[in-house]
Amino acid sequence: MKYIVIIGGGRLGSHMADVFSEQGDSVVIIDNNAESFKNLGENFSGFTVEADGRELEVLEHAKMSKADAVLCVTNDDNTNLMIAEIATEIYKIKKVIARIEEPENRKIAEKLGLKVVCPLELSAGELERILGGDGSK
Amino acid sequence: MKYIVIIGGGRLGSHMADVFSEQGDSVVIIDNNAESFKNLGENFSGFTVEADGRELEVLEHAKMSKADAVLCVTNDDNTNLMIAEIATEIYKIKKVIARIEEPENRKIAEKLGLKVVCPLELSAGELERILGGDGSK
Repeated sequence: MKYIVIIGGGRLGSHMADVFSEQGDSVVIIDNNAESFKNLGENFSGFTVEADGRELEVLEHAKMSKADAVLCVTNDDNTNLMIAEIATEIYKIKKVIARIEEPENRKIAEKLGLKVVCPLELSAGELERILGGDGSK
Repeated sequence: MKYIVIIGGGRLGSHMADVFSEQGDSVVIIDNNAESFKNLGENFSGFTVEADGRELEVLEHAKMSKADAVLCVTNDDNTNLMIAEIATEIYKIKKVIARIEEPENRKIAEKLGLKVVCPLELSAGELERILGGDGSK
């Protein structure tokens, strides 16, 4: 069983929380708006924390240092990059991923040695793949 | 040179408009909020139409029937599916793609025979791929 900390309870964060929870992993999901947790599936068995993930004591409370993986997936790139950097540098977590909405932030992330997921780039790539294909997909 | 009609001038729509425009394709991008067009790059050479893409006369005005491809990428799944259906059934466009934010809408899209791009699914898949890997990526 892994321990997964997710910052940001939007669609993506909640979806991942459900996925890991269903796999039997232990999940903590943090969001400063409790409304977000309504995105979680009814079978979600982890913990929800209504707090600002940019505060160190919140990360302490979430036992960040024990995490096997940290996903920083709020809808704010700066927040994601900042928390990912804290998780990597202060808590020495190996598997840390930051979501970026703005492709240009990839450069900053790479300078910091962070792994990123960019929904825009993924979607654009998929659109081009479909359009470049024979149209049968 | 292809003729591409894009409905929705958000990040994804504007990004694709820039990509096709830079490739030398002819692009029309439609959004009911002119503010969206600020997302377009300075080298965008296509046309912008401030109008509601759900109105047939707007699609006529945009010469939808001549399109080689239609991308329905507003942030509203219902709008995207509806316009994609119109493009496919009324205008007989072969390459039509609808963006869906809600994975459950994939079923509806498939029933209608529409191709879809789901940023959430793509991002979730990428997150799982990175986490499942050796962490070196």
